[in-house]
Amino acid sequence: MKALYFDGQLGLREVDKPRPGPEEALIQVSLAGICGTDLQILNGYSNFRGIPGHEFVGRVVGCGNAKWVGKRVVGEINISCGECDLCLWGLGRHCSKRTVMGIVNRDGAFAEYLVLPTFNLHEIPDSIPDEAAVLTEPLAAAAEILEQVKIRPRMRVAVLGDGRLGLLVAQVLHQERAHVNLLGRHPWKLDLAHSWGINVSGLGDEHLNKPHFPLVVEATGSPAGLEEAFRLVEPRGTIVMKSTFHGPAQFDTARLVVDEITLLGSRCGVFGRAIELLAQGRVKVDQLVSRTFPLEEGLAAFDFVKKTSPLKVLLRMAPA
Amino acid sequence: MKALYFDGQLGLREVDKPRPGPEEALIQVSLAGICGTDLQILNGYSNFRGIPGHEFVGRVVGCGNAKWVGKRVVGEINISCGECDLCLWGLGRHCSKRTVMGIVNRDGAFAEYLVLPTFNLHEIPDSIPDEAAVLTEPLAAAAEILEQVKIRPRMRVAVLGDGRLGLLVAQVLHQERAHVNLLGRHPWKLDLAHSWGINVSGLGDEHLNKPHFPLVVEATGSPAGLEEAFRLVEPRGTIVMKSTFHGPAQFDTARLVVDEITLLGSRCGVFGRAIELLAQGRVKVDQLVSRTFPLEEGLAAFDFVKKTSPLKVLLRMAPA
Repeated sequence: MKALYFDGQLGLREVDKPRPGPEEALIQVSLAGICGTDLQILNGYSNFRGIPGHEFVGRVVGCGNAKWVGKRVVGEINISCGECDLCLWGLGRHCSKRTVMGIVNRDGAFAEYLVLPTFNLHEIPDSIPDEAAVLTEPLAAAAEILEQVKIRPRMRVAVLGDGRLGLLVAQVLHQERAHVNLLGRHPWKLDLAHSWGINVSGLGDEHLNKPHFPLVVEATGSPAGLEEAFRLVEPRGTIVMKSTFHGPAQFDTARLVVDEITLLGSRCGVFGRAIELLAQGRVKVDQLVSRTFPLEEGLAAFDFVKKTSPLKVLLRMAPA
Repeated sequence: MKALYFDGQLGLREVDKPRPGPEEALIQVSLAGICGTDLQILNGYSNFRGIPGHEFVGRVVGCGNAKWVGKRVVGEINISCGECDLCLWGLGRHCSKRTVMGIVNRDGAFAEYLVLPTFNLHEIPDSIPDEAAVLTEPLAAAAEILEQVKIRPRMRVAVLGDGRLGLLVAQVLHQERAHVNLLGRHPWKLDLAHSWGINVSGLGDEHLNKPHFPLVVEATGSPAGLEEAFRLVEPRGTIVMKSTFHGPAQFDTARLVVDEITLLGSRCGVFGRAIELLAQGRVKVDQLVSRTFPLEEGLAAFDFVKKTSPLKVLLRMAPA
């Protein structure tokens, strides 16, 4: 099968089609999304070697469990041991023995086929098109905030960063009836959010300083975002940090301690709620797709992402 | 009256006795404690000028409200406006207009007399001697953790730092029946904690790496403590940060985000619970006092603190 393969350099290759083990499914990938983490993998993040890609939608074409065959599915990206304390607590995505599809020790979705445990699969209702379903994973990451912080209606929330994740986070909090301010640097992305009824501002705008926000979500992807978050959060407020980046960040610990700020790391989320949000049309994702490339033009797709700072870019696999 | 005064340099001075305003009390100080924050003020922290000192016990000798006169009291250190949203929420210690006794724009306790609003005062029961009552403020800061984090019996907790605050935090959590490990660098301080039934280890001990701790309290007073805390905390765990120090700290944001760590700033606490802990004898503070100097030898007391890394050092004011 064709796949994008990373061995220090990304290239299109012909590789063996994977074989599902027991309790695994072979999935023919329809669409896969390129994520910021994929770019970081190309820069050395997690020392990954293999097929990257962890956002996909596809169809099960082989599985020991017949009920899955033919189903259109998305898949949770952490493959956990199922036996340690965290797994038994339902927190398998923190399992220390886990592999992560396309990120840690397991091939991912930039290929015609992939293999995942059926435990990780979620069937996609017919009402959700492939172009929306492929965004389940980043939407789940955005919705993870709802699992961690109590969102009160009309609560003032600042979302920093108008990239893909920031736009999803802003929508998720907006549909919970929070009073969301999205702060970014790209007028056309802010206009998009504004068209959804979300308040928007430029990053660094002074009028946002007072009064402060009880909740700030940092999704800029840059260490400077954390400084801005500390500037905007109110005493006893919470900063949810979504950005992962290479290397350490600095912050003003005296502000954290004296004002008793809570800084909360937030990563992957559960898929069920994301699929629900898509099925109910409560989050708009169709305008988030900037362009779709065929898998064969995957390198051009990565170039496009690096050069133009688009929203979501997809890879489409040729139908079998 | 005599006072220690800081104007870029600390010195013993004769200054005017303060006059209480309406709803304030004039307090004759009996004992005052020297705190790490006082040392930092001498290094420029908060640009303070005036009489430092914010840990004290004394007796009310003048007050418009007669019910306070003659009472032995301690006092909360934040003097808030009483009118802003945070004050009305009961969070006056975060009021943006607040002054802080001996730290921000208000004279403190290293003097024969001080003035505080009666709103800030707490009467001390006869069962608590002065030498224990003077530790109410740092004990309240330690007990603040109980207001922020749910402590489950036998929960594994690492407390980093065997200084005054670390020893108080370890005791507060120990009496809540947490399974406390105190990590420090001073054998004699660790021995003291061990004599109270608390598990102790050297900072950096490898055997503590596995399994990780769901709760880590950082009270080392040094940026390196935060790195150690990230090394010890488990996925989805909480780090409570008590240390304030000059300048920024670095930390591994990827660990925070990927493992969804919560980093919680924690500062002053409410006095009521601290007084209760002292009255019930649930926290031992008598062994925490290393030495007591007369106010007149205040400079020598500061030298002693800087040179010998003792536990608590007190200043005693001569009886009137």
